[in-house]
Amino acid sequence: MQHDSASRIVEALRVWVASAPPGARLPSNRALVAQYGASPVTVQKAMRQLMALGIVESRPGVGTFVRTVRTARPADFGWQTAALGTPRSRASGLSATQRASVPDAIQLHSGYPARELLPERLVRSALTRVARSEAALTRSPSAGLPELQAWFANQVATSAPPGVAPPSARDPLVIAGSQSGLSSIFRALVGPGQPLIIESPTYWGAILAAEQAGVVLIPVPSGPDGPDPDEIERAFAATGARAFYAQPNFANPTGAQWSPETGLAVLDIVRSRGAFLIEDDWAHDLGIDADPHPLVGHDRDGHVIYLRSLTKSVSPALRVAAVIARGPARDRILADRAGETMYVSGLLQAAALDVVTQPGWTTHLRTMRHQLRNRRDLLLQSLRDGAPQLDVQQVPPGGLNLWVRLPDGTDVHNLVRECETRGLIIAPGSEWFPAEPSGPFIRLNYSGEDPARYPEAGHVLGAALRDTH
Amino acid sequence: MQHDSASRIVEALRVWVASAPPGARLPSNRALVAQYGASPVTVQKAMRQLMALGIVESRPGVGTFVRTVRTARPADFGWQTAALGTPRSRASGLSATQRASVPDAIQLHSGYPARELLPERLVRSALTRVARSEAALTRSPSAGLPELQAWFANQVATSAPPGVAPPSARDPLVIAGSQSGLSSIFRALVGPGQPLIIESPTYWGAILAAEQAGVVLIPVPSGPDGPDPDEIERAFAATGARAFYAQPNFANPTGAQWSPETGLAVLDIVRSRGAFLIEDDWAHDLGIDADPHPLVGHDRDGHVIYLRSLTKSVSPALRVAAVIARGPARDRILADRAGETMYVSGLLQAAALDVVTQPGWTTHLRTMRHQLRNRRDLLLQSLRDGAPQLDVQQVPPGGLNLWVRLPDGTDVHNLVRECETRGLIIAPGSEWFPAEPSGPFIRLNYSGEDPARYPEAGHVLGAALRDTH
Repeated sequence: MQHDSASRIVEALRVWVASAPPGARLPSNRALVAQYGASPVTVQKAMRQLMALGIVESRPGVGTFVRTVRTARPADFGWQTAALGTPRSRASGLSATQRASVPDAIQLHSGYPARELLPERLVRSALTRVARSEAALTRSPSAGLPELQAWFANQVATSAPPGVAPPSARDPLVIAGSQSGLSSIFRALVGPGQPLIIESPTYWGAILAAEQAGVVLIPVPSGPDGPDPDEIERAFAATGARAFYAQPNFANPTGAQWSPETGLAVLDIVRSRGAFLIEDDWAHDLGIDADPHPLVGHDRDGHVIYLRSLTKSVSPALRVAAVIARGPARDRILADRAGETMYVSGLLQAAALDVVTQPGWTTHLRTMRHQLRNRRDLLLQSLRDGAPQLDVQQVPPGGLNLWVRLPDGTDVHNLVRECETRGLIIAPGSEWFPAEPSGPFIRLNYSGEDPARYPEAGHVLGAALRDTH
Repeated sequence: MQHDSASRIVEALRVWVASAPPGARLPSNRALVAQYGASPVTVQKAMRQLMALGIVESRPGVGTFVRTVRTARPADFGWQTAALGTPRSRASGLSATQRASVPDAIQLHSGYPARELLPERLVRSALTRVARSEAALTRSPSAGLPELQAWFANQVATSAPPGVAPPSARDPLVIAGSQSGLSSIFRALVGPGQPLIIESPTYWGAILAAEQAGVVLIPVPSGPDGPDPDEIERAFAATGARAFYAQPNFANPTGAQWSPETGLAVLDIVRSRGAFLIEDDWAHDLGIDADPHPLVGHDRDGHVIYLRSLTKSVSPALRVAAVIARGPARDRILADRAGETMYVSGLLQAAALDVVTQPGWTTHLRTMRHQLRNRRDLLLQSLRDGAPQLDVQQVPPGGLNLWVRLPDGTDVHNLVRECETRGLIIAPGSEWFPAEPSGPFIRLNYSGEDPARYPEAGHVLGAALRDTH
């Protein structure tokens, strides 16, 4: 759509209109046909789009004109200050990871994989099939399409040891991306003013969702093998918390994977405390040197609330994820989702299910693993070559990020700005800390565009470090 | 997808498996090829799907078997009772309008238009185009695709009188259906424990979203011309509320459209109180005898928070809507949306924009208006013929519903059950009241499947009324 020829004309005329006075007359359709070498139908389509966007207006029999903007006094929104009061959390704006892409810069800030890492052919053919299906015109059940629920349940069932009943096909709730799941879980199972234990550092989106839900965060430090179970036990004892949010496999930002002993010890603590483990398995499809071992497989009595997303491994446009929960907790989360959104587009669900049940899906996962390994290793080598002052905390066995400690005393925000003026975009580590950062860190994502520029990125970072330190 | 031949085999084998013992061996692929007259590729595809769903398992070189379910002791979720405490609002379960369809019954309960009312050809061709586009593989900006934002703004700008600056192309926030907008607006602009003035009766989904947000509802009665402005003024004065939620055009459930005088009087009150009017223009595309006149067009200083959805007029699977807000209120809502979901699938946005900018879109709206008028009038005539004891409150000038008052003393829930045993599904009116219903009402939706059965529905309702009264 964006690249058909009508869109090309729309883009060109928007530029033209931007520098034209209101009321200026556009070239005739005949002139545009000649100018753009397009068919009259295409030119008409472009004109309709410009009219629908309110950029031009047509006077029949006369021509098409740049729309006149009515002049009016500026609006006064001052009264809203009193109506709104102070917010529960001071909105800190969007994360650095959500910034739009910056042309020509080397971009290591984004959390979303580049096109070449996605199963493009599978996604396009799934969408073409769904365009012809029932799913394009019908409402999905609130809990999701039954076949997709069953697929999510089966993914987890394969990791359950003998004697533990795996989740059933009706336990998963399909949601529009795992961020929605975090918000609902924190609202429904924790609630405002209540404590939630959380790893530090951890995913900034979880910190944001918890703040919006008014939850009180209780951070515990987490290293390459996960958190120290004794710290978790102390945090439960000290706060009376009933929930712990964690990413046991390939955590964002560190890439850490908990040892099996840590996982089972944490499960024991959670059970003995009558609490929930909110297991965010965001990187299930992103293992590099290791496979993920979700703890939900060991859960007998509904202590684990499990989150799995397909956004990163299928497509950022097919925003589909699932929460697997059992018992009253599932009802509580479902009620929150119903108030929040009623149901998830069945079209997205059908397309995602189509992708993950194609034989090409396992091939894609294998290819992606190989690509991620190459990208990770190239970025590591580029840092060693260009910025030897850096201390990469751990070679991550999975995920999409390097978590890098800067020399003590580095001003992280100065460094980020300095890199940006040199054409390198990176994310300051502070966003991943629920409280003060434990040191100067940055996160470098190795799934973006153009890995061939990693060596250049290493040198830019090294030079910026020398100049800001 | 659902109707290709692999799906046919999957469905048939699921039935077969349901009555087979665990471990039973499935017919060979060769036998299935013969039995279903399908190609070996199709049979293999069906088998892969059954395996992905966890229904069968393959033992290479031996065959395919019904998956053995591991026996385990039943899970004990009792501990969750203490961990969860009592919920903020006792979840009342899903609305009657969200019930799955009941085979062979006449269905007047659902809120979603039948396929024949949707622009099927436009939706399918838009999706086919989007499947080939950038939008299938990229992330949308948080506020939405700029072109779709501009379209929503332009829709409103055309109703602004001279001297009032219409919303700009960056004011709309694209959301995944208007329910998400209601939740965010109530959380971000009202907040837990704070009063919200609301029409009675009104949309049950708004009541649900407000309850989930912990908002205190202040109901004011609303008739065929809208609410009495004096009542609104008194409600603001008595409660100190800073927000009023309303559907001024073709309200759900009554179909009422406010008179222009009521609209302007309410706007004046809202302005003088330093408050927000949350204008839910859900039925913008569903006018029958009248066109909608959104009040947002008269808003100068960001007092109107405007909601517009495409779910009902484009497709329930293309869940796309917009909130138009200005000033700090917009920032507050955007921050809530970011914590809740980050962004809306750009694929759905691109497809929706494609549909509404086709020349076929205006034709579709005209056809739908004609169909809705015929359906409304047929249902009205059917009630007069079959159930003359009923009092239809108003011939709705737009929307999808008849709001019907039952004879005094009718037990609504008995009547609903009685109708159901006779094959007619209707929705009890109590769901649309924020407090006690002001009388016995039912809502009859005239946009569902099979309007040819309306005369039958009238007679069933008449007979059920005679037998329960």
